[in-house]
Amino acid sequence: MTEASRIGSAALRGKIMSAEEAAVLIEAGTTIGMSGFTGSGYPKAVPLALARRIEAEQAAGNPFRVKVWTGASTGPELDGALARANGIELRLPYNSDPIARDRINKGEMEYLDMHLSQVAPVAWQGFLGPLDTAVIEISGIRPDGSLVPSSSIGNNKTWLDRASQVILEVNAWQSTALEGMHDIYYGTALPPNRVPIPLVKPDDRIGEQTFRCDPAKIVAIVETHAPDRNAPFDEPDDAARAIAGHLLEFFRHEVAKARLPASLLPLQSGVGNVANAVLSSLAQGPFHDMTAYTEVIQDGMVELLDSGRLRVASATAFSLSPGAAASINARMASFRDKMILRPQEISNHPELIRRLGCLAMNGLIEADIYGNVNSTQLMGSRIMNGIGGSGDFARNAFISIFMMPSTKKGGKISGIVPYASHVDHITQDVQVIVTEQGLADLRGLSPKQRAKVIIENCAHPTYRPALTDYFKRAQRGSYGQQSPTLLDEALSWHQRFVETGSML
Amino acid sequence: MTEASRIGSAALRGKIMSAEEAAVLIEAGTTIGMSGFTGSGYPKAVPLALARRIEAEQAAGNPFRVKVWTGASTGPELDGALARANGIELRLPYNSDPIARDRINKGEMEYLDMHLSQVAPVAWQGFLGPLDTAVIEISGIRPDGSLVPSSSIGNNKTWLDRASQVILEVNAWQSTALEGMHDIYYGTALPPNRVPIPLVKPDDRIGEQTFRCDPAKIVAIVETHAPDRNAPFDEPDDAARAIAGHLLEFFRHEVAKARLPASLLPLQSGVGNVANAVLSSLAQGPFHDMTAYTEVIQDGMVELLDSGRLRVASATAFSLSPGAAASINARMASFRDKMILRPQEISNHPELIRRLGCLAMNGLIEADIYGNVNSTQLMGSRIMNGIGGSGDFARNAFISIFMMPSTKKGGKISGIVPYASHVDHITQDVQVIVTEQGLADLRGLSPKQRAKVIIENCAHPTYRPALTDYFKRAQRGSYGQQSPTLLDEALSWHQRFVETGSML
Ligand SMILES: CC(C)(COP(=O)(O)OP(=O)(O)OC[C@H]1O[C@@H](n2cnc3c(N)ncnc32)[C@H](O)[C@@H]1OP(=O)(O)O)[C@@H](O)C(=O)NCCC(=O)NCCS
Ligand SMILES: CC(C)(COP(=O)(O)OP(=O)(O)OC[C@H]1O[C@@H](n2cnc3c(N)ncnc32)[C@H](O)[C@@H]1OP(=O)(O)O)[C@@H](O)C(=O)NCCC(=O)NCCS
Repeated sequence: MTEASRIGSAALRGKIMSAEEAAVLIEAGTTIGMSGFTGSGYPKAVPLALARRIEAEQAAGNPFRVKVWTGASTGPELDGALARANGIELRLPYNSDPIARDRINKGEMEYLDMHLSQVAPVAWQGFLGPLDTAVIEISGIRPDGSLVPSSSIGNNKTWLDRASQVILEVNAWQSTALEGMHDIYYGTALPPNRVPIPLVKPDDRIGEQTFRCDPAKIVAIVETHAPDRNAPFDEPDDAARAIAGHLLEFFRHEVAKARLPASLLPLQSGVGNVANAVLSSLAQGPFHDMTAYTEVIQDGMVELLDSGRLRVASATAFSLSPGAAASINARMASFRDKMILRPQEISNHPELIRRLGCLAMNGLIEADIYGNVNSTQLMGSRIMNGIGGSGDFARNAFISIFMMPSTKKGGKISGIVPYASHVDHITQDVQVIVTEQGLADLRGLSPKQRAKVIIENCAHPTYRPALTDYFKRAQRGSYGQQSPTLLDEALSWHQRFVETGSML
Repeated sequence: MTEASRIGSAALRGKIMSAEEAAVLIEAGTTIGMSGFTGSGYPKAVPLALARRIEAEQAAGNPFRVKVWTGASTGPELDGALARANGIELRLPYNSDPIARDRINKGEMEYLDMHLSQVAPVAWQGFLGPLDTAVIEISGIRPDGSLVPSSSIGNNKTWLDRASQVILEVNAWQSTALEGMHDIYYGTALPPNRVPIPLVKPDDRIGEQTFRCDPAKIVAIVETHAPDRNAPFDEPDDAARAIAGHLLEFFRHEVAKARLPASLLPLQSGVGNVANAVLSSLAQGPFHDMTAYTEVIQDGMVELLDSGRLRVASATAFSLSPGAAASINARMASFRDKMILRPQEISNHPELIRRLGCLAMNGLIEADIYGNVNSTQLMGSRIMNGIGGSGDFARNAFISIFMMPSTKKGGKISGIVPYASHVDHITQDVQVIVTEQGLADLRGLSPKQRAKVIIENCAHPTYRPALTDYFKRAQRGSYGQQSPTLLDEALSWHQRFVETGSML
């Protein structure tokens, strides 16, 4: 693949057309499997053209909405544009676009929040219905017709296999040096034909460098030259730095106790500012020869690779700030042996996460005093992003760690609450909670023992007395004492916030 | 192994002693790993002797409590006796003994409720602290010193490996024909040394028939002749029969749609009366050549084997009514090729459950209108049994099914509630809910779509109008519309029950 000819197959070059022409091939009411994962590798022209078409049709009085499946979150040209046009009937499995989020929370759009590892298998099972069109960004086409992936893999392999028709966007903005970085495993099957996945180290390569695609299904190829667009990360603030400090201290202690190898175990780091700050601080930490088996390669992961502390990172996508994306793109070739992008059913596979023993580090919205974790729904009902891969990793990790600032919105919201308003991760899947206040090591503790440590180590001093008081009273007034709960008070903090704008 | 000499090793015969003598070897404050899983294969003499010793010590003013780890639930001679003596400081990972349950719910005993697949790995990780003594029931000792397991495997391999000292109970009540039925896999390791588990069919044998045990660690052998004691199952009532009917209809439909093979996929069936009734009804159903990859072999599973419909059952333990246990014991040899008992880290391993694509069928306490499932804590705080393997199976199953009667306690409690008072299984892990009213197929539905189907198909007519009304009002008054919730009303049904004895 060279800059001059991204489309190496002459036969396929005949299918080049404009985004507008391609968008016409998509019918109202159909289901589209798009590429895209955490702001990278999503199609940037056809969804915009489709949004315009939808707006025109709707203006003409013709209802036009589609179902949109992706890898994970995309960018404003996809979710933003289609949601603004009110063109999305159902969205799965993950979204972080503010316009789409708003539509969901107003009840104008259905959202199916799925474990990212399960999207491809569930699509194969047929439970989601047929897939009409795949719209996939790639970085090029080899002479033999195989497709060189772009900056994310996500569910592309599955969409290409399952869709009735395929529209490709060949994005010349993506580095040609991406070629060879991908590892597309074609060994998955439906039961009873599943076999062990032969991956035992984060840097094992078990698949092919490109996607297979039946050329007869390709109905359009659109050429683009547009950057991946992602929100920049905030500079780590004091809270993030304090969280990173507690976590590094914990890892050091576990290594000293010989419960973790000196190079730790494969790191998984979630999306968000705090996770990014922790990775940055590991770049200055005492651990060498580390590996990552994770979902996304974000700025902090690149910093860690650059520091020489991280040997290799396996993921399914980049999730870079605009600055980092441009910088990586310019020196992609130097990363080719240090990064591997895989299908998300492999990056997030429970079999592999448990085998490798990942150290999972994810953000959260709130935890209750027993350590039930809410990652997705503010005040129990308003979607933030989605569960993403956090469940895949938290349940199967060697140590499952959740981290957040102890208060949000200028102190008006406590991250530690009497009772989680929504549960994504049950106590069994939450072994460590970290805030800027401190770290709660919950391993081996019963719920009541967990409550003491969480309140003391993690809660903000402003909220600590009220939490202690609640816990004490619950130990007198609760129906049972496994995890003492005052039913008529459990959700009162959230209710107060909704009514007054503050939990205080 | 013959009836005459259960203890084939002459060297080990020298360690035979009474249960009282053996119990003296256990110190106050220590941790004991006991055998036992769902009422089978637990030690029946030493725990009783230990309970007597504890009572005597306590009467003499000497505090004496121990930490007790097992496979899962045991019997009255173990949990019952030790809990009555108030001799258990901490219990893990599962309990269904009423006396122990009562102590937990009064706050007199700490209980750590764990995913059953994770007990052995977590013990190896060292997070639970050291294991002082293993007390393991076996059915015999071979001349080479290897141990022939009893009617459950549970975590015995791990306890034997990790404990500083080992006490064996050789139970002559157990059939000698158990020999050869077990498959003890010794290929597990801690990361970074984990490798794929080479099991691809429920009937694959990947391990050894016996436990290894360092003879130097064996400090006592106690001979017993006592039956496994389990509660009898109730005869299936109308509700259980109706649930079974809906489920069979669903399976038939999935086979017709070619989304399930004609012989289904490996069955997993939870504990409890409803699960047992479903198995019974499968014995009359249209499916042949079935397999089971499950946790326990209960009465219904034996019926299914006897019917010829079920080819093989892989589990970690028996969980039989007294009648069935006696009957199986008498004809154990005829089952040797049809049953395999494995360590619970293998029977419940996420890698294997997902690979095999189990059809998981578990009981529950309540589900909310979005399909969050509570399997463990009544009114959000009172422990029933524990999560057991339900999380291992529900998250990794091909289809995760939960089933219960739509009302409990003579109609005073609704199984479908506005908001689950405790969450063990999140919506992503709950694909089908069945009550005697009907079946809700939730695959591919968003939370609001799920609510409609759950209320309509599963809720009892007495509670349906109130649920519909709540859901309607929540769609107006909720903070967000992803899963509409009225925070000040969400737990009011439970609160009403606690105050008045009825949710009505
Ligand atoms: C939970 C999650 C939103 C936290 O994100 P983050 O960037 O680490 O944390 P922040 O503290 O910056 O929170 C993000 C936003 O949520 C808000 N927020 C966080 N907790 C809140 C709470 N309890 N109540 C109200 N708002 C809250 C923050 O104020 C912030 O809003 P803003 O952008 O308007 O300031 C994020 O980690 C997530 O989406 N997780 C689920 C998916 C996941 O874990 N994926 C990784 C698996 S590989
Ligand atoms: C949830 C569970 C207790 C249901 O058991 P079951 O025997 O199928 O169901 P039942 O309807 O007979 O309920 C058992 C008891 O709980 C009570 N119960 C059930 N739901 C209740 C509720 N919502 N509120 C109060 N009591 C309730 C029943 O009344 C019954 O009590 P009783 O024995 O005093 O009559 C049981 O399945 C369990 O322990 N599950 C968790 C572990 C698991 O799933 N293991 C299998 C994995 S392999």
